[in-house]
Amino acid sequence: MNKLYEGKAKILYSTDEPEIFLAHFKDDATAFNALKRGQIQGKGEINCTISSALFRWLESKGILTHFIEQSTSNEMRVKAVKILPLEVVVRNIAAGSLCRETGLAEGKILPFPLVEFYLKNDELQDPLLTKDRILILEIVTPEQLEEMKNLALKINEHLTQFFADCGITLVDFKLEFGVDSQNKILLADEISPDTCRLWDSSETDPLARVMDKDRFRRDLGKIEEAYQQVQQRVLSQLSQLKS
Amino acid sequence: MNKLYEGKAKILYSTDEPEIFLAHFKDDATAFNALKRGQIQGKGEINCTISSALFRWLESKGILTHFIEQSTSNEMRVKAVKILPLEVVVRNIAAGSLCRETGLAEGKILPFPLVEFYLKNDELQDPLLTKDRILILEIVTPEQLEEMKNLALKINEHLTQFFADCGITLVDFKLEFGVDSQNKILLADEISPDTCRLWDSSETDPLARVMDKDRFRRDLGKIEEAYQQVQQRVLSQLSQLKS
Ligand SMILES: Nc1ncnc2c1ncn2[C@@H]1O[C@H](COP(=O)(O)OP(=O)(O)O)[C@@H](O)[C@H]1O
Ligand SMILES: Nc1ncnc2c1ncn2[C@@H]1O[C@H](COP(=O)(O)OP(=O)(O)O)[C@@H](O)[C@H]1O
Ligand SMILES: [Mg+2]
Ligand SMILES: [Mg+2]
Repeated sequence: MNKLYEGKAKILYSTDEPEIFLAHFKDDATAFNALKRGQIQGKGEINCTISSALFRWLESKGILTHFIEQSTSNEMRVKAVKILPLEVVVRNIAAGSLCRETGLAEGKILPFPLVEFYLKNDELQDPLLTKDRILILEIVTPEQLEEMKNLALKINEHLTQFFADCGITLVDFKLEFGVDSQNKILLADEISPDTCRLWDSSETDPLARVMDKDRFRRDLGKIEEAYQQVQQRVLSQLSQLKS
Repeated sequence: MNKLYEGKAKILYSTDEPEIFLAHFKDDATAFNALKRGQIQGKGEINCTISSALFRWLESKGILTHFIEQSTSNEMRVKAVKILPLEVVVRNIAAGSLCRETGLAEGKILPFPLVEFYLKNDELQDPLLTKDRILILEIVTPEQLEEMKNLALKINEHLTQFFADCGITLVDFKLEFGVDSQNKILLADEISPDTCRLWDSSETDPLARVMDKDRFRRDLGKIEEAYQQVQQRVLSQLSQLKS
């Protein structure tokens, strides 16, 4: 098992099988392009468990993902893909950089789900890209871009409903896609409180409702508790769906 | 005559006629969202003269502009419009923020003219907007956006050819549009070395070729000379066209 890449939240290993990687989820937390660093106790296990559960559930809805199995509490076996270097963000409610950059009020419900593309490039600080910039940079083909947007919207429909059933409002989230050896686009990376903005639907207080990495970004405390709460609700919703 | 607004480069006055404003072009120069300030001797007259000449010429090509007449060396009578708060940038060659943000090499010829929209908002530092962000902010209607893009491309065709005939490469430029009392979209503001990137076509040296406000932004010296050179070539090309 060879370490292929150590990122901010995960370590990627090769396995005996060339088409399979192992993703090890760390407790390390970073924000603001890694200017802020810390640890969230138990995050590796929680994010691996939530991601595994959501990938499995999305597969059952017909979404192709890189997920194979959760092999240990904080490790996931995944199909090796070539990651398309775009962070695909879907927003249902205005928050974060969208508000900072445009002046939109945090919490404003958007008139339609906003799909945005950011260049996955830490050095350039993950800049927002327009469609034309993506095409000029030749990061993906126009067809791939269209497919990523459609997939992101479909995933958003599924996840919004799923989280609503958990009593959680899916504000926005970041996806990564990759292409496999047959050039098929698969949903990859992770879906977790690190990569989603999740608000407790029963809370109106703008700080109390936060159940995601914003508790770390904004020093709101009770970070571990929030991540655990998300995991508990996701798992109990899934077991309810099964029964 | 009432001062309506003093901006970074111009002062706008009302006149006896409610549908006519007077734009006074100043020698003041600013860059980097006014963090850098200075003066360029004679700039007011030069930019007023170049803008007037180009607006008149674009009108002859069927483009509707706010231009009425150059009433003095540094003053232009214009049709009063409600400015649409978008800076419309057309890029033929990669330069400036496009390179800083995406990593594209300065000087790369783009595969198609890139039309970009920035929110005209100094406080928010004129952020780049995607099409969806523009629609969510409800800055313009989808139809207005489409028309602005088409106008920008048409203006780019005309100006690229015109400057080429002056021995100048039109790298990129910023336009502002406004709506008149009949809701017609007019090209407004100015077209000058303050708002265009202009490279001397016969120069290959990346610093020597610069004939625009980048000489000020980047402290390249010979600023007045460059502005005068642009004015001279524009006027002589126009008198050639007439004869
Ligand atoms: N199935 C996969 N195949 C190949 N690479 C993947 C796969 N899933 C995720 N990755 C990549 O592995 C890395 C995961 O580590 P992470 O800590 O999230 O990195 P980063 O700090 O770059 O975001 C990311 O670069 C991600 O794009
Ligand atoms: N025809 C017009 N009617 C109304 N406003 C105009 C017209 N042409 C330009 N303007 C506006 O007048 C101001 C010109 O001053 P300027 O110094 O360029 O301002 P700024 O610092 O805001 O760019 C700008 O705000 C511009 O949008
Ligand atoms: Mg990551
Ligand atoms: Mg201006």
